[in-house]
Amino acid sequence: MLILNNDEIESLISVETSLRFLEKAYSQQAEGRAVYRPRTDLYLPETTRSGVYAFKSMEGGLTDPPVVALRLNSNVIRWEEREGRTIKRKIPQAGSGKWVGLILLFSAETGEPLAIFPDGVIQRWRVAGTSALAARYLARENAATLGIFGSGWQAGAHVPMMCGVRTIKRVRLYSPTKANRERFAEEMERKVRVPVEVVERAEEVADGADILVAATNAITRVIEPQWLRPGVHVTCVKDCELGEETIRRADRLAIHCRRFAPLNYIAGFGDREIEVHDPVDLVQQGSGSVPPLEPPFWVSAPELKDLVAGTIPGRKSDKEITCFINNIGLGLQFAALGAGVYADAKSKGVGREVPTDWFLESVHP
Amino acid sequence: MLILNNDEIESLISVETSLRFLEKAYSQQAEGRAVYRPRTDLYLPETTRSGVYAFKSMEGGLTDPPVVALRLNSNVIRWEEREGRTIKRKIPQAGSGKWVGLILLFSAETGEPLAIFPDGVIQRWRVAGTSALAARYLARENAATLGIFGSGWQAGAHVPMMCGVRTIKRVRLYSPTKANRERFAEEMERKVRVPVEVVERAEEVADGADILVAATNAITRVIEPQWLRPGVHVTCVKDCELGEETIRRADRLAIHCRRFAPLNYIAGFGDREIEVHDPVDLVQQGSGSVPPLEPPFWVSAPELKDLVAGTIPGRKSDKEITCFINNIGLGLQFAALGAGVYADAKSKGVGREVPTDWFLESVHP
Repeated sequence: MLILNNDEIESLISVETSLRFLEKAYSQQAEGRAVYRPRTDLYLPETTRSGVYAFKSMEGGLTDPPVVALRLNSNVIRWEEREGRTIKRKIPQAGSGKWVGLILLFSAETGEPLAIFPDGVIQRWRVAGTSALAARYLARENAATLGIFGSGWQAGAHVPMMCGVRTIKRVRLYSPTKANRERFAEEMERKVRVPVEVVERAEEVADGADILVAATNAITRVIEPQWLRPGVHVTCVKDCELGEETIRRADRLAIHCRRFAPLNYIAGFGDREIEVHDPVDLVQQGSGSVPPLEPPFWVSAPELKDLVAGTIPGRKSDKEITCFINNIGLGLQFAALGAGVYADAKSKGVGREVPTDWFLESVHP
Repeated sequence: MLILNNDEIESLISVETSLRFLEKAYSQQAEGRAVYRPRTDLYLPETTRSGVYAFKSMEGGLTDPPVVALRLNSNVIRWEEREGRTIKRKIPQAGSGKWVGLILLFSAETGEPLAIFPDGVIQRWRVAGTSALAARYLARENAATLGIFGSGWQAGAHVPMMCGVRTIKRVRLYSPTKANRERFAEEMERKVRVPVEVVERAEEVADGADILVAATNAITRVIEPQWLRPGVHVTCVKDCELGEETIRRADRLAIHCRRFAPLNYIAGFGDREIEVHDPVDLVQQGSGSVPPLEPPFWVSAPELKDLVAGTIPGRKSDKEITCFINNIGLGLQFAALGAGVYADAKSKGVGREVPTDWFLESVHP
């Protein structure tokens, strides 16, 4: 069984292969040949002094290649107020200040475990790859200016991925902390070799942008409705970065997945399954009543798999405002990219092998 | 991070500690200090020639000790007809004919992965431990004769576990294959040091039995209603081994968990969650309509956690027929026994250590 680290994965993964593997996975999903188990989050509020413990997992399987991926996160979470916004911080508490996110890959032919690796690099490539795949169907063919909000891990993958689906000639960037946005601009210029312009006020990002991306850790609105001009394509890593008014400005809308909220299991709330995206209030207030979840108005929008399969059309005119809500992760993204990375690592001899036999058993489970 | 194998786990686990850890877990569940994510099964019908691929997982977390366990099975399944009964076989296809079932244990204090080990030994001890824990509250205090159906992996743990909660003086045993039942009787006599009598016809097991256990791989009825005498306690590893008529004979009924069916995700059935216990027909027939699930009449029965917490009474008289349906597994059983085995292994220096750092990451996932 193969063990890889994030550096090895970073050296193996590419924009082109990521897009190809993801497209193939969504096309299998549309054909009924892929399957996923939606994300669940399990909360234990009283086990750690640093915050709240949360165990997140999701699964996905493909017929071709025959693999199943389980992705898990074992996190200590803290919700913090920063510059008037609530952000969710994952506190690195493992080992000497690290995080725990893993992908386990299994053969769906023999059942055998194939690989274990950290999720960090694949996590951001799959989010950005999914946004970019949607942009392939929804952004204008001649989109050349990319506007991006955020300068973190997710934003850093969105820039090259968007450059993989459109001929981007300039990037405009805003993020609240000056030092962060300047460091990020330099890093991106090196990476995608197009000029990256840092702006001082958020709304300036939208000026002339053909594609607008919110890839932040904010859980409140980042892109205002009045910033959207005819012809723009707008996307996000969480629907709250757009908010209802911004989303309603779109003439054409698609979402990643109609199962839009994780299923949460919270100690103190009995055996109930609670559908919310960030159960910050519930966890902080302790046991009590759970407000009924109002499905958002966009929940019946077409899914990415429908765009990929061609059962719904993409952009129809240069005037349309289009929007893709990358609303929740799917295990099958990890199966798609995980299988690609695994095959590549095996063929190139990258990673450490541990005896597969350690993870097998000769008693009927 | 610690890696253990089944032999090591077998050497560490005991009837007494298993019962203690399980009892503590159910008591935390009753207090709202434990949490679980119900079992899900993900099916890919076209990835293997030997049967159908199924990925099963469940999770559970405790506040004391602060741990979360993920239990997974990566199986190739075949449903077979044998002696008029449908049985579900897991085909050992991994490596040189082995199975894949794993428990991953995490600290809910730091998030750190603590251990990975195969699930086989713990799997049977937690099923049998749960049945025995229920028998502690429901069987007659003076129960001395144990009748058991089955001679396999599950049956083999039920005999010592039941001996852990009542002073069992004799065991009566039936299983369809003569060679199996004789081998099993010898093995159990050595293990629990009480006489084990093999019978030729199933109904003879019930003669004079104070506790009746079905621990088979049958998915049809094993214990007939007319076999139950006043004062008996009857239990099973799947409700279908008893069937409605046998269960209805009970004066007092408890179940393991009210979430009684796994949530299945089947390729070819869209993104639907399908509640059935063994989706044999659905998987074999391919995509199509899913019959609505009728909740069984016993779904509102008290749960084991209520018995453990004392919020519902156990047996009230020597005449009552009592029944415990060990109807579905819970991740928190794996957290309870996994944490116990892990602590014991660490203190005794058992197992192989691999660098925890392989499973950590320095990028925000």
